[in-house]
Amino acid sequence: MKLCEMSASELRQTYLNFKKEYDEVCELGIDLDISRGKPNGAQLDLSNGLMTCLDKSVIDKCSFDYRNYGVMEGVPSSRKMLAPLLGVAPENTLVCGNSSLNIMYDCIVRAMLLGVLEGKTPWSQLPKVKFLCPAPGYDRHFAICEEFGIEMIAIDMTETGPDMDTVEKLVAEDETIKGMWCVPKYSNPQGITYSDETVRRLASMKTAADDFRIFWDNAYCIHDLYDEGDELLNVLDACTEAGNPDRVYIFFSTSKISFAGSGVAAMGGSKNNIDWQKKRMTIQTISFDKINQLRHVIYYKDADGLKEHMKLHADILRPKFETVLKAFDEQLAPLGCVYYPRPRGGYFISLDVMDGCAKRVVELCKNAGVVLTPAGSTYPYKNDPNDRNIRVAPSYINVDELEAAVSVLCASVKLACAEKLLEK
Amino acid sequence: MKLCEMSASELRQTYLNFKKEYDEVCELGIDLDISRGKPNGAQLDLSNGLMTCLDKSVIDKCSFDYRNYGVMEGVPSSRKMLAPLLGVAPENTLVCGNSSLNIMYDCIVRAMLLGVLEGKTPWSQLPKVKFLCPAPGYDRHFAICEEFGIEMIAIDMTETGPDMDTVEKLVAEDETIKGMWCVPKYSNPQGITYSDETVRRLASMKTAADDFRIFWDNAYCIHDLYDEGDELLNVLDACTEAGNPDRVYIFFSTSKISFAGSGVAAMGGSKNNIDWQKKRMTIQTISFDKINQLRHVIYYKDADGLKEHMKLHADILRPKFETVLKAFDEQLAPLGCVYYPRPRGGYFISLDVMDGCAKRVVELCKNAGVVLTPAGSTYPYKNDPNDRNIRVAPSYINVDELEAAVSVLCASVKLACAEKLLEK
Repeated sequence: MKLCEMSASELRQTYLNFKKEYDEVCELGIDLDISRGKPNGAQLDLSNGLMTCLDKSVIDKCSFDYRNYGVMEGVPSSRKMLAPLLGVAPENTLVCGNSSLNIMYDCIVRAMLLGVLEGKTPWSQLPKVKFLCPAPGYDRHFAICEEFGIEMIAIDMTETGPDMDTVEKLVAEDETIKGMWCVPKYSNPQGITYSDETVRRLASMKTAADDFRIFWDNAYCIHDLYDEGDELLNVLDACTEAGNPDRVYIFFSTSKISFAGSGVAAMGGSKNNIDWQKKRMTIQTISFDKINQLRHVIYYKDADGLKEHMKLHADILRPKFETVLKAFDEQLAPLGCVYYPRPRGGYFISLDVMDGCAKRVVELCKNAGVVLTPAGSTYPYKNDPNDRNIRVAPSYINVDELEAAVSVLCASVKLACAEKLLEK
Repeated sequence: MKLCEMSASELRQTYLNFKKEYDEVCELGIDLDISRGKPNGAQLDLSNGLMTCLDKSVIDKCSFDYRNYGVMEGVPSSRKMLAPLLGVAPENTLVCGNSSLNIMYDCIVRAMLLGVLEGKTPWSQLPKVKFLCPAPGYDRHFAICEEFGIEMIAIDMTETGPDMDTVEKLVAEDETIKGMWCVPKYSNPQGITYSDETVRRLASMKTAADDFRIFWDNAYCIHDLYDEGDELLNVLDACTEAGNPDRVYIFFSTSKISFAGSGVAAMGGSKNNIDWQKKRMTIQTISFDKINQLRHVIYYKDADGLKEHMKLHADILRPKFETVLKAFDEQLAPLGCVYYPRPRGGYFISLDVMDGCAKRVVELCKNAGVVLTPAGSTYPYKNDPNDRNIRVAPSYINVDELEAAVSVLCASVKLACAEKLLEK
């Protein structure tokens, strides 16, 4: 029976049962963390060969001594490897350092101080700059906006991506809206992949700002859990067809393919955008770590090699996602007051609980020994207006541990929801 | 006989001799580049072991899995290794990515958009920001200022560092002067090391701006050519003693120790500065490449290990510096119209020719097959007001090639000076 359909006495009894169940999981002395999307040791082990695959003999076979300065835009073979994942031509691909977040940050910095292209007004010279933020979304994106005083407007997510009716209306009316964050495939945290229609509407919508940019963080581009992965439309092609080739910056990294923190990150876009970004980057640094770029090419060969490698990750991650979803199906779905998409890839499971309960769930979990991402983190300004979204990161701990952590989470959700209904 | 002491007829004859000599070197079909401070292959080979020294067994011995996210401030052992070179405590050391230039750029970006510490006005909100630029200096520093519209004021270099009388006067009077570039040891391009007095005056001078920062790019900190290297006073200690601990940002990298572009770079300073920079960096990235940081520790062990390694570099570089200086001593010094310091470390030799001749020398060299750094590059806005400074980067080519390149350079200098005197 659904919680909201219970009589007062049924609810009272249910609350006592849930309280007992919660007290029991508290006794287990659990100490687990499912707060961050970190790969676990077994996943990292898949790429141990990366550390030793490159030696002087590899350098000797190259036409350029990649140990030295230069080649700002990245080792050609690494551009060729990552270009298909960005969905752009190798010549419009920049392979950079270890962090795609850092490239995004730098793109915003350049827009703030220099404008997005020659002759465009630097955003820092404008009285107000706003970004659209599909929410729930990635906390690190929102933190960059907050850092630079960029006002964030939360956009509801639907099962096909951001609520495009609202997006189209806002960007058409408001020229202070200069950008939008998107994690278009297996979105963080819901695992939603934007539909073709959503991509086409983003590409073709009329924007009041002529320097509007979509930050297309395709972090989970090949991070499928099943052989048949979600398909995402090529956004640069869509933008180009719509006559807006400069609208989108596309980002990607191998942080969740090779080593988190020691991977390579890349950016793609129109020739205009990439030429300009490269020109600006030559002021910032002399070159990125080409040895590490080359190391990745030696180890994974090409885009297909990376995709094959991701199947090994999927074998480790799939049981974890299924463990969480099975527990939610069995223990939470019957309550009738939770919502969770079923991601087929990515790194997170998003759980919406009864309004006003997310903070309490996180608190109850903490008291029972399970650390969750702080409630609200997935929203701009860390403010979930309905206090309902919980992000679960199942990757880091093993399946047994995850079962224990999720039992705590489910017990906490049940208790928090029953508490909330009793208050009414 | 010195050129300027010659009679008109002597000068005419000398010009013809120089012209003949120049024409002869043109016939040699030389094609060489001494424009950039790039290490050569033999130097890079010294660190080939770096590429394979780290494998899973190293990771297993660490208390943290450095293949994963986290440890924003850098691997503790790498902080400990680089701290003595920065002259700061390990806890006030941030080990970052592959480029110290990038850290400097980022520090300026943060100052522009956020201010140098909590509560300080972002420089981009001020009508005017100026930097002092000891000149000749490093072109890449000046390019960052130009990128962000920071007005540069050239400061003459003396044999003990920047002209401190001028520096003290300017910073005391003008609160729009927010920063100063310094390459304090084996300065680029002159190879001058700041005297203790210069360091103390920089540390203690009164500045009108309360957010004035010295960008202390100690790029050549252990890049001695001889067993007895120049000694540089610890600038953070001097600033702290003078009551200005937050005045200085200190930078260093292994770009010219391990691999150019695949080294590690670090920053040090007061606790205030470092805490704040670290806090800001956590918005920019999740962590830097800790595997590469660890690789450097495995290979070089500690600061002493790095210093030992630099002796191997010195053995390769010393003959090159001596080749250039010997040619200058024999061929240019007798002209009586050139000036060149005798660096005991670093990467460059600076040659001042007769006023108004530098561009012509670079042109003559180019026509004879030798590429030099463009004349003026070592000055703010690429404008050498006296058109006299030439930067020689002897590291990249081998000694035989360097002899050929310098013979072209000397022939070009002689011809350009004789031409100039004949004009008068």
